[in-house]
Amino acid sequence: MTLHESREKASGDNVIRSRDAELRQRARQVIPGGMYGHLNMSAMPAEYPQFFESARGARVTDVDGREFVDLMCSWGPVILGHHHPEVDEAFNRQMALGDCLNGPSPRMVELAERLVGVVSHADWAMFQKNGTDATTLCVTIARAATGRRKVLVAKGAYHGAAPWCTPVESGTTPEDRANLVRYTYNDLESVRAVLSDDVAAIMVSPFRHDAGYDQEFVDPEFARGLRMICDEIGAALILDDVRCGFRLHFGGSWDPLGVEPDLSAWSKAIANGYPLAAVLGNDKYRAAVQSIFTTGSFWFASASMAASLATLDVLERDDAVGHMTRMGDALRAGIQEQAERRGVEIVQTGPSQMPFLSFVGDVDWSIASQFAAAALRHGLYLHPRHNWFISAALTDADLDRALSATDAAFGELRSPRL
Amino acid sequence: MTLHESREKASGDNVIRSRDAELRQRARQVIPGGMYGHLNMSAMPAEYPQFFESARGARVTDVDGREFVDLMCSWGPVILGHHHPEVDEAFNRQMALGDCLNGPSPRMVELAERLVGVVSHADWAMFQKNGTDATTLCVTIARAATGRRKVLVAKGAYHGAAPWCTPVESGTTPEDRANLVRYTYNDLESVRAVLSDDVAAIMVSPFRHDAGYDQEFVDPEFARGLRMICDEIGAALILDDVRCGFRLHFGGSWDPLGVEPDLSAWSKAIANGYPLAAVLGNDKYRAAVQSIFTTGSFWFASASMAASLATLDVLERDDAVGHMTRMGDALRAGIQEQAERRGVEIVQTGPSQMPFLSFVGDVDWSIASQFAAAALRHGLYLHPRHNWFISAALTDADLDRALSATDAAFGELRSPRL
Repeated sequence: MTLHESREKASGDNVIRSRDAELRQRARQVIPGGMYGHLNMSAMPAEYPQFFESARGARVTDVDGREFVDLMCSWGPVILGHHHPEVDEAFNRQMALGDCLNGPSPRMVELAERLVGVVSHADWAMFQKNGTDATTLCVTIARAATGRRKVLVAKGAYHGAAPWCTPVESGTTPEDRANLVRYTYNDLESVRAVLSDDVAAIMVSPFRHDAGYDQEFVDPEFARGLRMICDEIGAALILDDVRCGFRLHFGGSWDPLGVEPDLSAWSKAIANGYPLAAVLGNDKYRAAVQSIFTTGSFWFASASMAASLATLDVLERDDAVGHMTRMGDALRAGIQEQAERRGVEIVQTGPSQMPFLSFVGDVDWSIASQFAAAALRHGLYLHPRHNWFISAALTDADLDRALSATDAAFGELRSPRL
Repeated sequence: MTLHESREKASGDNVIRSRDAELRQRARQVIPGGMYGHLNMSAMPAEYPQFFESARGARVTDVDGREFVDLMCSWGPVILGHHHPEVDEAFNRQMALGDCLNGPSPRMVELAERLVGVVSHADWAMFQKNGTDATTLCVTIARAATGRRKVLVAKGAYHGAAPWCTPVESGTTPEDRANLVRYTYNDLESVRAVLSDDVAAIMVSPFRHDAGYDQEFVDPEFARGLRMICDEIGAALILDDVRCGFRLHFGGSWDPLGVEPDLSAWSKAIANGYPLAAVLGNDKYRAAVQSIFTTGSFWFASASMAASLATLDVLERDDAVGHMTRMGDALRAGIQEQAERRGVEIVQTGPSQMPFLSFVGDVDWSIASQFAAAALRHGLYLHPRHNWFISAALTDADLDRALSATDAAFGELRSPRL
């Protein structure tokens, strides 16, 4: 699609000139508001496609045939690139045997053994389908183990979209949130200030990756302090590794810090886009798991577990974290050079594999939106208010195209310095 | 595997004689208690396999190579039989394009349109991964629409395994259950007795299918009464069609009654075993959906939606409900004849497609367990305390083998009349 056609689509006139616009119109009839959840594009620049046709490697193609270098990776799940041959082969091999059966297949035991071997704090594993399943289950296990109710979470942190944790209160009850207590990320004093004898768990993200904010690394002293507090008060330390898991480190995201949570929640990238979530825990919480009941119709399905086993093998063998880090560093360096050359004041934050760009003084995110829309027109898919995700499939050619798109986007900013 | 070998496995001696026993031993190391959820076989007769190798049509094969006629259908999801060629082809065709992308594919719109066309009360659709996602979302939408908190559910009814609804209280808080109010299924007075001005919704199953009880059809007067009460008090009527959906009727399970819920929850069979859940609703609740936030990393993945589209096509074209009904009727008649011939007093309940067998006076379910274990040894997989599921793949040959197994099982009962 040319830029001209793209603008026609975005102009909102009555003639539907794109398949995306036609699908949006049909969607509005049968899906409230046309879409929901994190993939609802209604608040994004009009150029953003709502519907996608296909993907391969680090490229995605929308329903109008526009191909983009993919810096969102389906918001995290795609870590080895779309259609990684070894992962797909493992998935298909298990699928040909059986997926959703009257019991799990041997893949479930193999995957639990593999994860316990790879993640240092883990003595056992359980599997689910959603990241929210995993965070909710961690909380349930912590409560069962401690007999307490309160769960401490950081202000603004995203831990899922069930009533107890969704960032939007509509449809939830005060009781759903009655046992959530907020602290400030990287502020141990704020944690100590809300302690009580009813604290079952402290939940924490590997780093602060709240949407709509610059990202912030964890202070190792904060991580160690949380571990110490949990030991002091007998509460569970829960690491929410749903978004970061296996992108920052081949192991738990805090393994390099030497800080071991009691429980960790996983999903997104652990099966390269096939639906799977996991809770890992240590032996202290093993008995509590046996006292609770949770399940799901598809939680024991094996093909996603086979895909996860292959994903872990490839991540390890190919040093995927190393590749993603190098590509992320190169992307960041390129963007920095472009911004400086054009005199645009930017802030780049977060780990190289999950980079984020914001603009100084861009309080309403309007510059970020302009930039993202322009990058999109030039063939790069990223998000203006949410961290990006690098995949191990990103090639030098993809990176060149990405940087060419960002350079053009900087050039098209209407008020680059505010 | 011969019966002798099977008994060696079940005898619990130290020599591991089966692959299942070896996998159970490994699982106990890395999965608390060796397994969890509804597929945890630790409370089942020792003959029951925990792990499965493969499946095709109406047959499943465990990791020791024992093949069974499948009357559990993965506890519901498999409705057209394992590996239905048209469903698998639709799944694979979409998977080759893309599954989990930066947005949904056109399949999402097509599936929403199809479901709205098929289920009479539905004006719109949303998709998730777990049945529990769907029931939870129905409750959230009802609360958002009404601004009220209480949800009425039947005593003993299963509506999922999140903290607000899991049948086991360990790990949940009093606040999680604070807004659940219980009524008695098929007893309108029990519903009227717990009404208040804070009722957001009444949730109900299409019929009473609580595990560990004989099944009970809905009284049409009860269904109509619930609709009337909800209209009177301005609450949402939520039909939990997760377990029954598309097995009882090609449409909502209460469509034949002419009683339309406001919201319905779906999962299990809607994509023939591929992971998918859905909420359907009417226009009265459309705006409420737009006020809430819920999502999941894999909720927009398209391959399961493509599988669901194909599943619906085949269900309709082949009159799958008709076939399942006829096979269920024949199974039931055969079991009845066998029991009468042997003088065993039994009770058969529930719809033909979701039959259930219990034994008169079998208060501790020990006869049912004996019977199920014997049926299993003779090549039939069913459950002693939970309703069974017929699939449209069940052939006359499968039925013959099933009835031969039940006949042998009746013959092996140690105390058939108590």
